[in-house]
Amino acid sequence: MHLADIVMVSIPVDVMVEELPKILDLVSDDCVVFDAGSTKELLCEVLTDHPKRRNFLACHPIAGTEFSGPSAAINGLYDGKTNIICEIEKTAFTLQEKALELFQLLGMRIRYMNPKAHDKHIAYVSHLSHISSFMLGKTVIEKERNERDIFDMAGSGFESTVRLAKSSPAMWTPIFKQNKENVIETLEEYIQNLTEFKELLVKDDYDGIYNEMNNTNKIKAILSGLPAAKKPQ
Amino acid sequence: MHLADIVMVSIPVDVMVEELPKILDLVSDDCVVFDAGSTKELLCEVLTDHPKRRNFLACHPIAGTEFSGPSAAINGLYDGKTNIICEIEKTAFTLQEKALELFQLLGMRIRYMNPKAHDKHIAYVSHLSHISSFMLGKTVIEKERNERDIFDMAGSGFESTVRLAKSSPAMWTPIFKQNKENVIETLEEYIQNLTEFKELLVKDDYDGIYNEMNNTNKIKAILSGLPAAKKPQ
Repeated sequence: MHLADIVMVSIPVDVMVEELPKILDLVSDDCVVFDAGSTKELLCEVLTDHPKRRNFLACHPIAGTEFSGPSAAINGLYDGKTNIICEIEKTAFTLQEKALELFQLLGMRIRYMNPKAHDKHIAYVSHLSHISSFMLGKTVIEKERNERDIFDMAGSGFESTVRLAKSSPAMWTPIFKQNKENVIETLEEYIQNLTEFKELLVKDDYDGIYNEMNNTNKIKAILSGLPAAKKPQ
Repeated sequence: MHLADIVMVSIPVDVMVEELPKILDLVSDDCVVFDAGSTKELLCEVLTDHPKRRNFLACHPIAGTEFSGPSAAINGLYDGKTNIICEIEKTAFTLQEKALELFQLLGMRIRYMNPKAHDKHIAYVSHLSHISSFMLGKTVIEKERNERDIFDMAGSGFESTVRLAKSSPAMWTPIFKQNKENVIETLEEYIQNLTEFKELLVKDDYDGIYNEMNNTNKIKAILSGLPAAKKPQ
């Protein structure tokens, strides 16, 4: 029987920490198993003492859309996208090589991080965006109950900010659970910034409001340097 | 001298309320003047007793991007987009007709509202989105100061939620000023929803978190019915 050479596991992160140890039990010594989960700390911890730890490569390809499942597949999805790899040193040399060769063929750019730093940073640039989007959607849906036809006025700006509110709750609930501490920290900072902006408005401090927006405009230059900007989906 | 038949005024809303009365002073009786501002209440109020009020049509075409100025022009921008018209009854019949004929040729869908309802509703589906986006950008930029390379991990999800943070402070400060009361109300509701989400996380109420997201997923069906969804820019 010929066993798999490469196994990619792309399932919600709560079942990931249960299934990955069992999958590793089954693979041959020259098979590399990598994941695509949005949290890395718990998974790496769970696998620390696994006898086949050397067969595993912890990955987070920063790619995808708000849609899930096979019908959400996109040809060339990984081309030009970032793949964050954690604890590369714990993977067997030959299997590191095999996986990296595949990622190179797919056109991915590789970044190495430790799982703790990954989870902290990704809370800012991914997990917080999802919550801000879900809560924005909720705020407008709640309003629509009393004031009809609000959505009829929505344009592409609104659509862009609530796009992520279409995401799967089954995928995102366990992500927020596993990354609870970091996500709470980002939420507190975000709520604080929104509250300060509101206070400026209450005080009629329009110079302050102008400065807030002007200082944040630098996001333009930052984003234009991102791979996502160069290869929009 | 042949005077203009149609004048469209597209300038920040603070100078709009100053310049539009002067522009109206100059036009001939058969000229229709319309604006493209994101607030309608103050402008309509300022023009109530203008001797040429019948030459003015208060408009808000829900179209555009985060970019400003002539270089941000887009061919076919208005095709399929919504144009909100306020106080149509105050515009001369023949001039209503002239403007509507133009909007039809441009492919716009027309919605009629009173200025007060416009400002209230647009705060939810446009003004709040801009603030949520600016503050999201600010939160991540602040974090990047201490933790380098956060942006290197950003994907298309982050990019989508912070896109509006590239918008012009000179355009948006006067919008927030003119729509202060409504914007503060939306911000309070949004901050409340974010705080409740955070509390669910603090309490480890993951069923609650799942339900919050699941209930907001209906945004998918709502957005797919929008003109913006049918004609993305």
